[in-house]
Amino acid sequence: MKKMDYQNVKGTQDYLPSAEKVRRGIRRTLEDVFIQYGCHPLETPILNYTELLASKYGGGAEILEEMYTLTDRGERDLALRYDLTIPFAKVVAMNPTLRMPFKRYEIGKVFRDGPIKSGRFREFTQCDVDIVGVESQMAETELMIMALDAFSKLDLKVVIQYNNRKLLTGMLEVFGTEKEKVNRVVLILDKLEKVGLEAVAAELNKLGLSESTISSLLQFLTDKNNSILSYFQPYEKNEQVRQGIEELKELQSYLEVLNADNQCVFSPFLARGLEIYTGTIYEIFLCDKSIKSSIGSGGRYDNAIGGLIGTDQNISTVGISFGLDVIYTALDVLGKISEEMVIDYYIIPLGTQKEALLVANDFRNKGFKVEIEMSNKKVRKALERANKEKSRNVIIIGEDEVTNNQLKIKDMATGNENLEFYPFK
Amino acid sequence: MKKMDYQNVKGTQDYLPSAEKVRRGIRRTLEDVFIQYGCHPLETPILNYTELLASKYGGGAEILEEMYTLTDRGERDLALRYDLTIPFAKVVAMNPTLRMPFKRYEIGKVFRDGPIKSGRFREFTQCDVDIVGVESQMAETELMIMALDAFSKLDLKVVIQYNNRKLLTGMLEVFGTEKEKVNRVVLILDKLEKVGLEAVAAELNKLGLSESTISSLLQFLTDKNNSILSYFQPYEKNEQVRQGIEELKELQSYLEVLNADNQCVFSPFLARGLEIYTGTIYEIFLCDKSIKSSIGSGGRYDNAIGGLIGTDQNISTVGISFGLDVIYTALDVLGKISEEMVIDYYIIPLGTQKEALLVANDFRNKGFKVEIEMSNKKVRKALERANKEKSRNVIIIGEDEVTNNQLKIKDMATGNENLEFYPFK
Repeated sequence: MKKMDYQNVKGTQDYLPSAEKVRRGIRRTLEDVFIQYGCHPLETPILNYTELLASKYGGGAEILEEMYTLTDRGERDLALRYDLTIPFAKVVAMNPTLRMPFKRYEIGKVFRDGPIKSGRFREFTQCDVDIVGVESQMAETELMIMALDAFSKLDLKVVIQYNNRKLLTGMLEVFGTEKEKVNRVVLILDKLEKVGLEAVAAELNKLGLSESTISSLLQFLTDKNNSILSYFQPYEKNEQVRQGIEELKELQSYLEVLNADNQCVFSPFLARGLEIYTGTIYEIFLCDKSIKSSIGSGGRYDNAIGGLIGTDQNISTVGISFGLDVIYTALDVLGKISEEMVIDYYIIPLGTQKEALLVANDFRNKGFKVEIEMSNKKVRKALERANKEKSRNVIIIGEDEVTNNQLKIKDMATGNENLEFYPFK
Repeated sequence: MKKMDYQNVKGTQDYLPSAEKVRRGIRRTLEDVFIQYGCHPLETPILNYTELLASKYGGGAEILEEMYTLTDRGERDLALRYDLTIPFAKVVAMNPTLRMPFKRYEIGKVFRDGPIKSGRFREFTQCDVDIVGVESQMAETELMIMALDAFSKLDLKVVIQYNNRKLLTGMLEVFGTEKEKVNRVVLILDKLEKVGLEAVAAELNKLGLSESTISSLLQFLTDKNNSILSYFQPYEKNEQVRQGIEELKELQSYLEVLNADNQCVFSPFLARGLEIYTGTIYEIFLCDKSIKSSIGSGGRYDNAIGGLIGTDQNISTVGISFGLDVIYTALDVLGKISEEMVIDYYIIPLGTQKEALLVANDFRNKGFKVEIEMSNKKVRKALERANKEKSRNVIIIGEDEVTNNQLKIKDMATGNENLEFYPFK
């Protein structure tokens, strides 16, 4: 018989127990924090109508190219979801009786048939929280504070950079950027930290901006005072700038009260890739920059849900998204992954299968985690295995123990052995 | 603007918070029990090569017809997994250094493009535990006991019916069933409880079995003593029957020791639909039959992984699978779904947004679940909402409270109000 050679589909992977235990811990920590902040769980399907996911309020042209599509037996055009935002918006659209504000979290798989770079997968897990129905910057504050809380519980030191899309696009207008070029300039500015000032200048030139616009922009980018809000006050005649400053001031006043203003930093060029954002935006980074890319991000997108529903009205929505894989990588890079003890008692029967099952059952009923050696391993091999499984204690049950109604419990950390009465008969 | 009318893809659904909270509880209960029994988490991709899923050790012709298939941008032939067994077998095949025995659980979505009946979906969640590398019936015992433990923790009274495929097929041989018809007879017998004796007899006739075979079979089906193992001893000359009895005796001896023989019932016609089973099989039912179909099932399949790997050798494997949706339905039918309190403190600011954020932050740091009213609702509306959210306490913060450095905490169950000192300044 030919031995088969299996492999995973490119961009997908198996998470073996050593990694999956850590991922389970991350998921539970995030979920418990989400619940503490009053978020409700939602679970949406992976299979969606292509028409819904391809909506213009969706992920934009680049993401749509990366969509996995299929046809079912009923000839429906379906696609696998590429994020959790559109399915959330669909739920809001389909359930007009939902109590507002609605604060939900969802942790689930999403799919993108895109290029595989380091740490990027085609099938991956996102952890999203969104609040719909709150105009106030309290919503942004809650999500940012929640993120700080979650990362503190995950033992990761982070900083949150934030900005406001109204302020950014307003300033670009002030500098004379033509309206249809604003979005592209935003994307160019977003790369400043990665590619440097010269490369940004070159790209702005290529885009055909006027010399005066470019020089204003470059001055703005290099001015050391631009991280203070008062820097922007002279430009308040621009309505976008005025609203942006107002929102930022509200946000900052909340962050100050919560003593979070040292961990949350105003970053006037922060742009975020997606077009849907309409107000506050934020990205979360590791303080020590051991991972360069952000490990969470989000912002306000007041037009998307209304747009999807097809009403003219704005529907206030603020969201934040964490990537499970990048958080795992961060913990791994920082050496914070330790194999926790998983087994309290590892029971090795020596011809005493029934008694082993009985003791295991008893100890599990008391709440302990118990494993039984069931494959007739010799004692030495079984002890090796118990060691590899990080078992706290080992119980070897031979005929003598059964006859004497006792258990010999070996503490694997100290090597001490304890005899305990156990009523086998 | 046209108001859009969204709907979910046929066979998929959204789980809104009220249902999803219960599902989260079921998932966590199952997961915690799995961990207590020494199981390790595994996460496998949803996207797989069609070739792998269509293997003859997979789900059989009917399931393969229901497979969702697609092609990625790299022209690979892919399919969505229809169960968690084949992906598990693939992991075993791909990772020869896995420590045996390997005991894993996986909770994840699977997809089947099949007919929609009541309670059946095309995208649904399975919760599987499998043990590879254990020949002894201890493996079956562990999984059956684990199932009893899990359902007891879920507050569902269940009975496990079990049988042995070797015994069943051996008896069919004894009765003179032609080898190539054995599997079809097994499927017919499986329907006995649903369709009754006459319908089974008719189907056996249609299959073209000899008269003597049919009359032996019918006598077997109606004999009141056939639920005692000694009934089968006269047929032990058949090697399958002999092995089946031996395995059943071992299993029963374990179940007796654990006092589980009243909840686990030998059921000599239990057949299970799938062809892969080679030994013990079992199905879990609600005691009160308020749901007729099984709410969990599994068995031993010693050939599948070896077959998938492409070696001749048998690889001992025993599995059990729980359906999240059917467990939810069971709890629902039995009226065991109660909306748990989710919010400890619901904070209503009256122009005191900052103070509300501060108090929320404080209380969350103490471990409480806290929600803030952020949408400027009037007090009466906000109280209504707090009530609907099943909040335990409400804190209304007005200017007076801030000035006086105090919090007025209203217990929503008793209506009592308590004043507590709180250092706003």
